[in-house]
Amino acid sequence: MALTVAVAGATGYAGGEILRLLLGHPAYLSGELAIGALTANSNAGQKVASLMPNLPALAERAILKTTPENLDGHDVVFLALPHGYSAEIARQLPEETLVLDCGADFRLVDSGDWVKYYGNDHAGHWPYGIPEMPGRRELIARSRRVAVPGCFPTGATLAALPALACGLAEPDLSIVSVTGVSGAGKKAAVNLLGSETMGSLRAYNTAGKHRHTPEIVQNLKQGTGLDVRVSFTPVLAPLPRGILTTITAPLREGVSTQSAHEAFCDYYAGEQFVWVMPAGGQPQTQNVVGTNMCHIQVEVDEDAGKLLVTSAIDNLTKGTAGAAVQCMNIALGWTEAAGLPTAAVAP
Amino acid sequence: MALTVAVAGATGYAGGEILRLLLGHPAYLSGELAIGALTANSNAGQKVASLMPNLPALAERAILKTTPENLDGHDVVFLALPHGYSAEIARQLPEETLVLDCGADFRLVDSGDWVKYYGNDHAGHWPYGIPEMPGRRELIARSRRVAVPGCFPTGATLAALPALACGLAEPDLSIVSVTGVSGAGKKAAVNLLGSETMGSLRAYNTAGKHRHTPEIVQNLKQGTGLDVRVSFTPVLAPLPRGILTTITAPLREGVSTQSAHEAFCDYYAGEQFVWVMPAGGQPQTQNVVGTNMCHIQVEVDEDAGKLLVTSAIDNLTKGTAGAAVQCMNIALGWTEAAGLPTAAVAP
Amino acid sequence: MALTVAVAGATGYAGGEILRLLLGHPAYLSGELAIGALTANSNAGQKVASLMPNLPALAERAILKTTPENLDGHDVVFLALPHGYSAEIARQLPEETLVLDCGADFRLVDSGDWVKYYGNDHAGHWPYGIPEMPGRRELIARSRRVAVPGCFPTGATLAALPALACGLAEPDLSIVSVTGVSGAGKKAAVNLLGSETMGSLRAYNTAGKHRHTPEIVQNLKQGTGLDVRVSFTPVLAPLPRGILTTITAPLREGVSTQSAHEAFCDYYAGEQFVWVMPAGGQPQTQNVVGTNMCHIQVEVDEDAGKLLVTSAIDNLTKGTAGAAVQCMNIALGWTEAAGLPTAAVAP
Amino acid sequence: MALTVAVAGATGYAGGEILRLLLGHPAYLSGELAIGALTANSNAGQKVASLMPNLPALAERAILKTTPENLDGHDVVFLALPHGYSAEIARQLPEETLVLDCGADFRLVDSGDWVKYYGNDHAGHWPYGIPEMPGRRELIARSRRVAVPGCFPTGATLAALPALACGLAEPDLSIVSVTGVSGAGKKAAVNLLGSETMGSLRAYNTAGKHRHTPEIVQNLKQGTGLDVRVSFTPVLAPLPRGILTTITAPLREGVSTQSAHEAFCDYYAGEQFVWVMPAGGQPQTQNVVGTNMCHIQVEVDEDAGKLLVTSAIDNLTKGTAGAAVQCMNIALGWTEAAGLPTAAVAP
Repeated sequence: MALTVAVAGATGYAGGEILRLLLGHPAYLSGELAIGALTANSNAGQKVASLMPNLPALAERAILKTTPENLDGHDVVFLALPHGYSAEIARQLPEETLVLDCGADFRLVDSGDWVKYYGNDHAGHWPYGIPEMPGRRELIARSRRVAVPGCFPTGATLAALPALACGLAEPDLSIVSVTGVSGAGKKAAVNLLGSETMGSLRAYNTAGKHRHTPEIVQNLKQGTGLDVRVSFTPVLAPLPRGILTTITAPLREGVSTQSAHEAFCDYYAGEQFVWVMPAGGQPQTQNVVGTNMCHIQVEVDEDAGKLLVTSAIDNLTKGTAGAAVQCMNIALGWTEAAGLPTAAVAP
Repeated sequence: MALTVAVAGATGYAGGEILRLLLGHPAYLSGELAIGALTANSNAGQKVASLMPNLPALAERAILKTTPENLDGHDVVFLALPHGYSAEIARQLPEETLVLDCGADFRLVDSGDWVKYYGNDHAGHWPYGIPEMPGRRELIARSRRVAVPGCFPTGATLAALPALACGLAEPDLSIVSVTGVSGAGKKAAVNLLGSETMGSLRAYNTAGKHRHTPEIVQNLKQGTGLDVRVSFTPVLAPLPRGILTTITAPLREGVSTQSAHEAFCDYYAGEQFVWVMPAGGQPQTQNVVGTNMCHIQVEVDEDAGKLLVTSAIDNLTKGTAGAAVQCMNIALGWTEAAGLPTAAVAP
Repeated sequence: MALTVAVAGATGYAGGEILRLLLGHPAYLSGELAIGALTANSNAGQKVASLMPNLPALAERAILKTTPENLDGHDVVFLALPHGYSAEIARQLPEETLVLDCGADFRLVDSGDWVKYYGNDHAGHWPYGIPEMPGRRELIARSRRVAVPGCFPTGATLAALPALACGLAEPDLSIVSVTGVSGAGKKAAVNLLGSETMGSLRAYNTAGKHRHTPEIVQNLKQGTGLDVRVSFTPVLAPLPRGILTTITAPLREGVSTQSAHEAFCDYYAGEQFVWVMPAGGQPQTQNVVGTNMCHIQVEVDEDAGKLLVTSAIDNLTKGTAGAAVQCMNIALGWTEAAGLPTAAVAP
Repeated sequence: MALTVAVAGATGYAGGEILRLLLGHPAYLSGELAIGALTANSNAGQKVASLMPNLPALAERAILKTTPENLDGHDVVFLALPHGYSAEIARQLPEETLVLDCGADFRLVDSGDWVKYYGNDHAGHWPYGIPEMPGRRELIARSRRVAVPGCFPTGATLAALPALACGLAEPDLSIVSVTGVSGAGKKAAVNLLGSETMGSLRAYNTAGKHRHTPEIVQNLKQGTGLDVRVSFTPVLAPLPRGILTTITAPLREGVSTQSAHEAFCDYYAGEQFVWVMPAGGQPQTQNVVGTNMCHIQVEVDEDAGKLLVTSAIDNLTKGTAGAAVQCMNIALGWTEAAGLPTAAVAP
């Protein structure tokens, strides 16, 4: 009998992307996985046809209210809900249900960080869903609860980890991540209008104010044991999807572009969703759109005394929904890459 | 043993999209279909890694020169070549090879049309690859040669056919198709630069000068037997992919929005890649990006005495590569929808 | 002593564009014109610095509440308010004040049209601010009240008038206007988010439902005396500013591209803000951005039996604020072109 | 009698922007300044109407060949030519002609830098056209030769100078500049096509390879006397115009956001084209489009131990043509701000 999967917050961008991936998942195509309840709040009662016309296969499905009752009885539940709300719902789901939370509620280990950046009570922490981090794949495999990472932390962590773990640079990072607008979600706001975002660039939540800052720091500290300092500056750019991250850090002596490149290649040997590009290439966001890939390049800037790492991800796929499906595959013991595109919709 | 497929002109946008689709095709994933020679001209000798970094699964593959020798020995050959060149290559391929030409060489039946619009000698015509046109699916199934349709003709034909075939409007069409820039291909030209195309709109090849005009007329005449007149105006808009087509035509008496909508729904009943949207919805190109879908809406404008039909396709998928793969599936006797996404990468 | 000008609804896109133009107006630069009250509703109390950082010259100015009292005592008042609200405010302003209403309240002559399209009571009609229409310049010069035209009607009227007035085509027009997103204003709405509008195209308010339809019809009837039928289809495209209008209409016998082009050139001889482009050129919206220009081309499509006219305007300049300033100049007896750019910010 | 001005390289983006500004310059409008020869190479012989339809006021002007003869006899000559070519032409112009070179030939003081980054012989150096740098206004006023700065160096220098000059941060800068595509000029290249640049982000000329790197270092060394290190990473983003620069540098002890902000405000007190935004605001490129402004913000990131400075300019205006006109005004003893917009075409 088929496993059933529910998506809470199905009508937002993360929820929609989870559904897009599930519809192409071999387990769905073969009948092993059935798409169950799709829930939302203000959109409850409407049909997918009017809310997500990009998913005609589900056109006739009605959106239910996000309640524990409607989510009950599924083998897998994806939560794509505002922070605070995930924790509340998750608490009421059976222990044996595989719950993948795309929100922030269970990402941070440190309560102080949580309170400083999110304000409300800390719900705790779950195994963190970047399987490419040391030791995480095993944790995810054993767990029925996964905290899916934030989009910026995914691109930044995958780019920075080898640089620190392999001793290529000092743990004092300047990170600038240029992002498409879908990262801000599907909520009406004047500063996210097409008129305000097309043809314009702006930094926001600068100087440590962005909530993904402590998550990046936590990942790098856990992944390397070092006392890492991070300056994080997100920049909003006129494209729907994609994050290009640039990281500079003081170069360690004796590191060359070639040795750094080799260290990165070795670090990610065997990883299917991280591509350390051939020397000379640079990650470009259009080459990861719709995929679960992270493209990475590393270089040495001798004159400036800096290591430069760049990475590109699709914020909605590897940055959210793709990571969630990857973790689901791991937790269910399926092929990790099942249903996760690596070939991007470009141009 | 696996069937092998070659792609000539693999490094252009159409060729790249064919490869993206093949990499997700169940026959490729199961080993029934193998990707053989990838050929090009000026790019021959380079690797996919540098030419198409959106396809990391093929990164190490080298691009060969486009020659009959390099294409020989494959069961399926996709041609994504400039017009004139397809015909020359096709002539030298074995009869039993399934050849799908994404170029224009074999689309037009009438030599006069060909000479007027393309200038050189007419190569003849092959079964035309819009399976949703009356009688075409059967022709394609029996043929080893398929002329894959142009992008504009696909969106226009699917939108106009039911209007004419069901007698909803006079065969005197005003068609305006707004298109993304990838339709112009991957060739350097000042007027296609980002600076010239972002933030701007312009009509081009107006007043019957666009080469897709006779192809649209031919499809509608063949599909309805009527003496059709078409005014076709393409408009270039700042997006990579997508064609939104609007068609107005003099309304036949007694036709209402409701009766027109029902006629369209009936006409496309059973078609998996045409979605006549629920009344009130309008096709939006982002909802078909990366898919083989055509979304359609039809309405009556009483005051103006016009029928209005709108359609959205992805010019590179249903408009080119998706149609090619769909035709391949039909010609090989496979599931017609295999490997063809219906869920769009939106937003 | 300087004349003073107030702008009601100053923080919206139309209001901001009026201010941009006034700041570059020779009368402002020479001290003959002073910028007085800037008013709004929800934004009242805030400074220009935070609301319109594109206008640093006014950074320290505070926004007042939109009330007749705050607008009183100015020589010129621009109203950039929601429909219904303009009329209410206008009624309370002194007769001798020059009032330019950028809203719809006083555009339509026919009460039936008004009620059908806007729903509430008809406020009446004022001289209509397209000075290039026959006889309008004189009316505007004598009036202290001007109804500034809608953006779509401006592009469509200027393109269609000569075609009908010179007998080049039948008065049965199919108009498709592709528009940037700023036309929808600066109000939060999910379907106007960057994520929903970038990378996508969609028609909206189709089949006669758009409120600018009766305004276009009215202009063409008044300007030609003919019984005009108009099918109007607006299409939303991913750019901030610009409207590209395409018009097809049944061709009158004996009309050639050359004779049509000459008729258009003659019709607009002496007009500074209409450029009938040299034969072979096509209007492109980036070439009018920030200007008060309308670029036009006309062609004959023999095979289709259609006349094709295309035009480009900036919806916020010639389409709204530029027209308003042009009308102010006329009504004040100033040089009509004062402060109105013709050189576009391109690319 | 009017001064005459010639523009060499008039049909490129920099040349076109110079013309746009001149057409709105009060000296042009009053007849004091006449636009003389417009020259180019491959476009010579064509009319402005077909090459730059955004400048209808010059539509009938023909483009001449770029030769010393055609440029001779003008009081002011703007050079917007490829590097190497400027020097060759400049050498042949009379000493008393005011020559403003928008190319790189005379920007760098150090021959070694020149050879390393540009490869050919060093032509020497001219007074450098950022009037806001200490002592430069006076040099420009006395000179008949001005090296107009590069676009990236303008945004980076204006942002970094106060941080270093006021001792707010260590002279060890990580600069990431996100730029629109017009900075790459109007030359056909596949990687600058709309298809390749819309919807995508990529870093390029990374790790010290960009030619603007030594220019930034030179400016900061000259402006502060410090031994400055600069890591510079340009990122290409999907918009026509605009550069958003983010700079991080190790924070000096005792510096707060408030004290840094005050230092910046003091540093630029009296400068008309630099706007240190009110605390809390962030520069946004759309708010400088078409203007000669640089918007700046500065903040302290305590946790990261970094100073963060952000700036926005229009690469074609303050970044090139606006700076050129500003320098012309200074060198001619005119009002420095004449003809230079501060109100941006936004949205």
